[in-house]
Amino acid sequence: MTQPADVVAIARDLLRCPSVTPAEGGALAYVADQLGRAGFTVERPVFSEPGHADIENLYARIGSEGPHLVFAGHTDVVPAGDETRWTHPPFASEVAHGVLYGRGAVDMKGAVACALAAALDHLEANGGRPKGSLSFLLTGDEEGVAVNGTVKLLKWAVERGETFDHCVLGEPTNPEALGDMVKIGRRGSLNGALIVHGTQGHVAYPRLADNPVRHMVRLVSALLAEPLDAGSEHFDPSNLEFTSIDVGNKTVNVIPAEARARFNIRFNDHHTQESLKALVEARAVAAAPDARFKIVWEPSNADVFLTAPGPFVGLVSDAIETVTGRAPTLSTSGGTSDARFIKDYCPVIEFGLVNASMHGIDERVPVADLVGLTAVYREIFSRYFG
Amino acid sequence: MTQPADVVAIARDLLRCPSVTPAEGGALAYVADQLGRAGFTVERPVFSEPGHADIENLYARIGSEGPHLVFAGHTDVVPAGDETRWTHPPFASEVAHGVLYGRGAVDMKGAVACALAAALDHLEANGGRPKGSLSFLLTGDEEGVAVNGTVKLLKWAVERGETFDHCVLGEPTNPEALGDMVKIGRRGSLNGALIVHGTQGHVAYPRLADNPVRHMVRLVSALLAEPLDAGSEHFDPSNLEFTSIDVGNKTVNVIPAEARARFNIRFNDHHTQESLKALVEARAVAAAPDARFKIVWEPSNADVFLTAPGPFVGLVSDAIETVTGRAPTLSTSGGTSDARFIKDYCPVIEFGLVNASMHGIDERVPVADLVGLTAVYREIFSRYFG
Ligand SMILES: [Zn+2]
Ligand SMILES: [Zn+2]
Repeated sequence: MTQPADVVAIARDLLRCPSVTPAEGGALAYVADQLGRAGFTVERPVFSEPGHADIENLYARIGSEGPHLVFAGHTDVVPAGDETRWTHPPFASEVAHGVLYGRGAVDMKGAVACALAAALDHLEANGGRPKGSLSFLLTGDEEGVAVNGTVKLLKWAVERGETFDHCVLGEPTNPEALGDMVKIGRRGSLNGALIVHGTQGHVAYPRLADNPVRHMVRLVSALLAEPLDAGSEHFDPSNLEFTSIDVGNKTVNVIPAEARARFNIRFNDHHTQESLKALVEARAVAAAPDARFKIVWEPSNADVFLTAPGPFVGLVSDAIETVTGRAPTLSTSGGTSDARFIKDYCPVIEFGLVNASMHGIDERVPVADLVGLTAVYREIFSRYFG
Repeated sequence: MTQPADVVAIARDLLRCPSVTPAEGGALAYVADQLGRAGFTVERPVFSEPGHADIENLYARIGSEGPHLVFAGHTDVVPAGDETRWTHPPFASEVAHGVLYGRGAVDMKGAVACALAAALDHLEANGGRPKGSLSFLLTGDEEGVAVNGTVKLLKWAVERGETFDHCVLGEPTNPEALGDMVKIGRRGSLNGALIVHGTQGHVAYPRLADNPVRHMVRLVSALLAEPLDAGSEHFDPSNLEFTSIDVGNKTVNVIPAEARARFNIRFNDHHTQESLKALVEARAVAAAPDARFKIVWEPSNADVFLTAPGPFVGLVSDAIETVTGRAPTLSTSGGTSDARFIKDYCPVIEFGLVNASMHGIDERVPVADLVGLTAVYREIFSRYFG
């Protein structure tokens, strides 16, 4: 076998790119160049949306047959925060004691480097072409508002006739060590506002007023009292959190006319958005039948998704165990990711680096993890196209 | 008997003065002139406080012996609001169909006019001097922050050697008709803020955070669940109203670090400020022993007061019934008034005009009520000095 691709060199090159969202910073250009030289057909669509920055994206494919495996990810990163608190500058890409430091080391330019290195290795070992098709679907708009990223890139690709069979999204998934956890689903997310109307009045004459705070507290108590479900085979119980209550009444002797609260629900596969809305509204009405209130739901593109255990999940899981020696937990925990968009096109799982340092000061990845994740991706490609 | 003082003319003169708090508007000067000509010794102290407007006040006394009866009140008025909505301009002092319109008609330049007319009549009928002492204690700072008004005027007078035996405060007290209600006390008022500390976090990981909204709702529910008391002989039950809850968290996926609420308590003679604070704090701790919260109390000068039924209350009550044909309810309802300051110096009751139109558009008083209240005050003076 020839010399494998130098994943550390690739990762260091990528981490030097100042690709703080929405800036491309040279990161996608770097990947495009590498993939192009390896024989990929590379497209660089730029998407626009009024009121938002134009965003660069990348779609690169090699092969024209099925099966078609997509590696998805992003090269944009969150800001570095207080750079003086970093022990190594966030875009210097320094390696110290076997650890590579830099913003995006784990979320997720490190994983992009691993997938790139694994792809180069796989092609090298297979005469320059996969037995099927391998694509890279990378965006520069994941850490921002995500309107010009994966959601548009998928639509754009499908409009060009692309179809996908399976996807690996390289977000950081492991709590402690490479191989801990693969994500096979994510809870959905829904935001709502609870608006309670009362009747303004003077605190000295409460019977002439109707204090909306009283109703609000009753409603919030009721919505927090009982869990939305007990969890499902693959998911934790759904959870509702009130993130704010706001009355904004500065006048100490006045009973206010209105109270507002905002809440977020992370929901599992017991619910659809619609069934969840109906459940919450029914509980609210039952708790305060005499209150004048309404619930205003924000539009949400974060539906619950699950890639149920089966051959594809098994393949990925086995590849991880073969390389790392760990049988990964099949998890659906945590926040949302671009997998919520991808799941509408093909089954998707997420496996990447260790997430402990993501978004923090001194974001970093052990060189060993870069080498390990490259081996995992290579093993996935090998089994998938084998 | 000579011609009685023309209370309608006096009231119209006073209502023309644009004495929107803190402006004197000529109102106190007018009263000073009338009282001076009737033989009162008139003082016009001006009080100052950093950050507040200087305020004119009036203290006028006739007689040097006891008993000493004080008529207390204010000539400042709240703003007119939207003047285009008044059917008669707020400072034009127009009489239509037997009703005098204008800001302050009932709260309380109308009552000041009645007391002035009654005093002139009483002196006229008694050879120019009361059998005792009669004083007017009027401020221009009741509707505002009230820092340069009655509270300072009383202190100023006492420092000059003044002592008071009884006081009638002319605030509007009657819900529907003259003679309905005399106020013999007022509940105290206390403001507090409830501050709940939590631990900020991401809504997708609620177990890593501690949502203060949850504790806040539990605390507010507990403080609203049980009345503070069942009322007392002369008072309604004490009442707690939450006037605001504010978290101010704009980020939909973040569990906030802190929640704040404000509340007001109107309390009766079961409580002192200190006992009330202890009660509320004990209930809060019992409701949420695991919550990190504190209650911050605002300083309050609004203690509960009661002028218990006895000879003075009886005298006033009988005078009202004699003139109006109604036995007034002895009430302790409603908001606070300057009686909260006066009660530290002498027994005080409140009786004035009908309060229905106070602070509203088209504030107004029937001429018949001005004549009636003048007769009531005259009857009080006559019995008091008789
Ligand atoms: Zn990411
Ligand atoms: Zn008043």
